[in-house]
Amino acid sequence: MPPTVRSLGLRNTSHVNALQTCVGLSRSVGRATAAARCRVSVPAPAILSAQTKSQGVRVTLDAKAAMVLAPSDQETRMRIGILGTGMVGQTLGTKLASLGHDVVLGSREPDNAKARAWVERTGGTARCGDFAAAASYGDVLFNCTMGTASIEALTRAKAENLVGKVIVDVSNPLDFDNGMPPTLFVSNTDSLAERLQRAFPAARFVKALNTMNANIMVDPMKLANGEHAVFVSANDHDAKEVVRGLLASFGWKHIVDLGDLSTARGTEQLLPLWIRLWGALQTSDFNFAIAR
Amino acid sequence: MPPTVRSLGLRNTSHVNALQTCVGLSRSVGRATAAARCRVSVPAPAILSAQTKSQGVRVTLDAKAAMVLAPSDQETRMRIGILGTGMVGQTLGTKLASLGHDVVLGSREPDNAKARAWVERTGGTARCGDFAAAASYGDVLFNCTMGTASIEALTRAKAENLVGKVIVDVSNPLDFDNGMPPTLFVSNTDSLAERLQRAFPAARFVKALNTMNANIMVDPMKLANGEHAVFVSANDHDAKEVVRGLLASFGWKHIVDLGDLSTARGTEQLLPLWIRLWGALQTSDFNFAIAR
Repeated sequence: MPPTVRSLGLRNTSHVNALQTCVGLSRSVGRATAAARCRVSVPAPAILSAQTKSQGVRVTLDAKAAMVLAPSDQETRMRIGILGTGMVGQTLGTKLASLGHDVVLGSREPDNAKARAWVERTGGTARCGDFAAAASYGDVLFNCTMGTASIEALTRAKAENLVGKVIVDVSNPLDFDNGMPPTLFVSNTDSLAERLQRAFPAARFVKALNTMNANIMVDPMKLANGEHAVFVSANDHDAKEVVRGLLASFGWKHIVDLGDLSTARGTEQLLPLWIRLWGALQTSDFNFAIAR
Repeated sequence: MPPTVRSLGLRNTSHVNALQTCVGLSRSVGRATAAARCRVSVPAPAILSAQTKSQGVRVTLDAKAAMVLAPSDQETRMRIGILGTGMVGQTLGTKLASLGHDVVLGSREPDNAKARAWVERTGGTARCGDFAAAASYGDVLFNCTMGTASIEALTRAKAENLVGKVIVDVSNPLDFDNGMPPTLFVSNTDSLAERLQRAFPAARFVKALNTMNANIMVDPMKLANGEHAVFVSANDHDAKEVVRGLLASFGWKHIVDLGDLSTARGTEQLLPLWIRLWGALQTSDFNFAIAR
């Protein structure tokens, strides 16, 4: 059943009208690419909170609603910079581009063959460049680099390009130097997310999406009708809200706010169990759910 | 619906007859105390595997069936030693006694008021003593001491009392010395379970039940119709099977075998997330499930 205007909690008439049009057009809720073609002047889900606050409108979004509200025109698009051209960066970039956002995929070298091939696969709707190009372009950045390379990647992205930016830290502090299974190069009394925040204090880091494989990150409905969890940790409330909105637009139904960025110690320390479960289940297509 | 003889896969006539009587008597499957009063000469679920193998009988138990098969007479009872008189030790002891096992609750001092009060609450079906008394009595032991006290408790239990014993390690390496939230005093490249195994190499440690609160340990149906997980890690296959049987008798439907004892690093490192979730959810009545 598509979300109703009532379920969305919209009280602003123009938004309600626009939304009704949008819901009418995209009956196949959950198919984000279809929804992305629905041209409505409604703020992108990720920035709804900030925009509507200034307009005095309270908006509550659930996951299905957020998908219907996928942005499509210049007004509603978000500028996204992805740091890292591996599977995680490419998968997130593809999803964000399919939702109508403007995406720049950043890598160490500006002329990266993998990144160029990815741009071609998006049909030219996205671009690529070096870390600094992606960081300076994006209002929201995703750190999808290897944990061991994250500090260097963000240094190359240049601190001045990170000021005030929301940075979704998807990385994990995995150390493969001593073979398999990997250990963590920071844990217990500190986390990689906190290290990054200390190194770039003017950025607003949000730890999220680091506890499942890339396909599930962008398509939670792939498993158990979406009945499983993604965790968010951040010191900055508004940055966390932006990320919650983006996650909802991916289809996440259970977004668990753990608290400040130090709670990323918990989700980063989930990796050793995740890796052993990968072996025990013989698939990486699983995720943690919270039974209550 | 109570399990049928067919669903249990029993092919030994005397066991089938006994079981039919038992199923008839205890319609309220899941109420272990009722089931425990059902006097049937069927091996205890935890030792079914070993006993029936020698008799040439294949028995497959599910959780409900295991509860119906609660032991009651001298032949079927297991001797259980519990180390630790805190909430975890008491709750596990109560459950095991209610399932018809013979339980000795062990503590540092033989004359422990808390342990004596617990014995009274069990209606005198269980006993208490010092760590050595519990360890020498039990064929299966549960380490329910604080992680910081586990080595000392097992040392007091005496190494000669631990030879060949299955020890379910429920402890966690939580260090509260620097305030809340606690950190882990061993993690990442080692675990408390492995430390205990190295310290007492003749015992057979099985890490289990350390990732949820005590009430859920013994009553998984309390949450989400039992649709959540308990993890087991052990080097010894037979010891793991004994523990799987006991867990099934508690009602666990999803017993996830992670592999050898080093996989306990994963479940012990789950605690930092568990603690933050406790805060975020404002309840400890939750558990992790694996969505697939």
